[in-house]
Amino acid sequence: MIFSSALIETAVNEFARMPGIGKKTALRLVLHLLKQEPAQVQQFSDAIARMRQQIKFCKQCHNVSDEDICSICASHTRNKDIVCVVENIRDVMAIENTQQYNGLYHVLGGIISPIDGIGPDQLNIHSLVERVQQQGTAEVIMALSPTIEGDTTIYYLSKKLKDYPVKVTTIARGIAFGGELEYADEMTLARSITNRLPLENYMQK
Amino acid sequence: MIFSSALIETAVNEFARMPGIGKKTALRLVLHLLKQEPAQVQQFSDAIARMRQQIKFCKQCHNVSDEDICSICASHTRNKDIVCVVENIRDVMAIENTQQYNGLYHVLGGIISPIDGIGPDQLNIHSLVERVQQQGTAEVIMALSPTIEGDTTIYYLSKKLKDYPVKVTTIARGIAFGGELEYADEMTLARSITNRLPLENYMQK
Repeated sequence: MIFSSALIETAVNEFARMPGIGKKTALRLVLHLLKQEPAQVQQFSDAIARMRQQIKFCKQCHNVSDEDICSICASHTRNKDIVCVVENIRDVMAIENTQQYNGLYHVLGGIISPIDGIGPDQLNIHSLVERVQQQGTAEVIMALSPTIEGDTTIYYLSKKLKDYPVKVTTIARGIAFGGELEYADEMTLARSITNRLPLENYMQK
Repeated sequence: MIFSSALIETAVNEFARMPGIGKKTALRLVLHLLKQEPAQVQQFSDAIARMRQQIKFCKQCHNVSDEDICSICASHTRNKDIVCVVENIRDVMAIENTQQYNGLYHVLGGIISPIDGIGPDQLNIHSLVERVQQQGTAEVIMALSPTIEGDTTIYYLSKKLKDYPVKVTTIARGIAFGGELEYADEMTLARSITNRLPLENYMQK
């Protein structure tokens, strides 16, 4: 692509580095911004820079947060006896959107996947065991994607937790095998949380 | 969508204001940026803010430019006797990408479209007539999308230019009627410039 402006070229190249955005889409976005008021574009630019600079990760559950402890962990109305284990912060948002879950979360930051070189040590597993131990958590819900990696992670975590008096459950298999949690519709996802099973049932299938 | 972070919510909403970007895509982009180094996100944010603040529009051809006069108008190697009239700066880029055109441009900033309330006065038509008059332009190529609005604009411009000794041509109809200039493949677009026709031929069809 030939640009007559280095300013535009730089902006297009920056947009085109994002996933799913090619050069043509990047150009379309840049030309859209060019048509906006400078103050509005500044607001857009500031929101992005501020988000990345100021974002924190909750010291307890590793969810994204504006404070050291996230608003979910800090809430007085949530049930602190239940911890829902998820792969990433998108899954937290997906479950929050169902408005069916009132416990806390624990964001693993991935799932065990030897192919991608992700072992238990790269994940927030130690802090989960510590939470269960220190806080006497009554139930841990495994809300991981129903894939082989997800199952491996559930199995690993259940071994780690077996010495503590905690009930380990999994969300119901309402989601098709191989499906991605974040793309499930809210109805299915909500039901899979409501109908969660004790781990024994899950393993028998 | 429920966010546990106001920083993320603001950033997602800003992204979602752009054309073709919904809330889910906006969230995907924001989460991607979250995973990048802060310095890299700052660079992205700066490129956008700087682009909008510092961009100029060429005083001669109205193309986007880093200076008062754009690099195309200022170039010593381009043929200043030919002016190619286009609707917007995307069309300039599309034609530049063919690498088949060595003249100058004139960006109208739209086409005459009574339905959208765009009349000749909202477009850079006066400055085109002035250019032709003052610079003794030898040829004006109409490179407008082959739609009714494009044809109306060509007709209007040809009337405005008829008192000057300038040859008015149109790019060849290689592009399907109703098609958008910017989405044409480079081959077709290049050929349509090479095979441009005197306006008489075009009107007869």
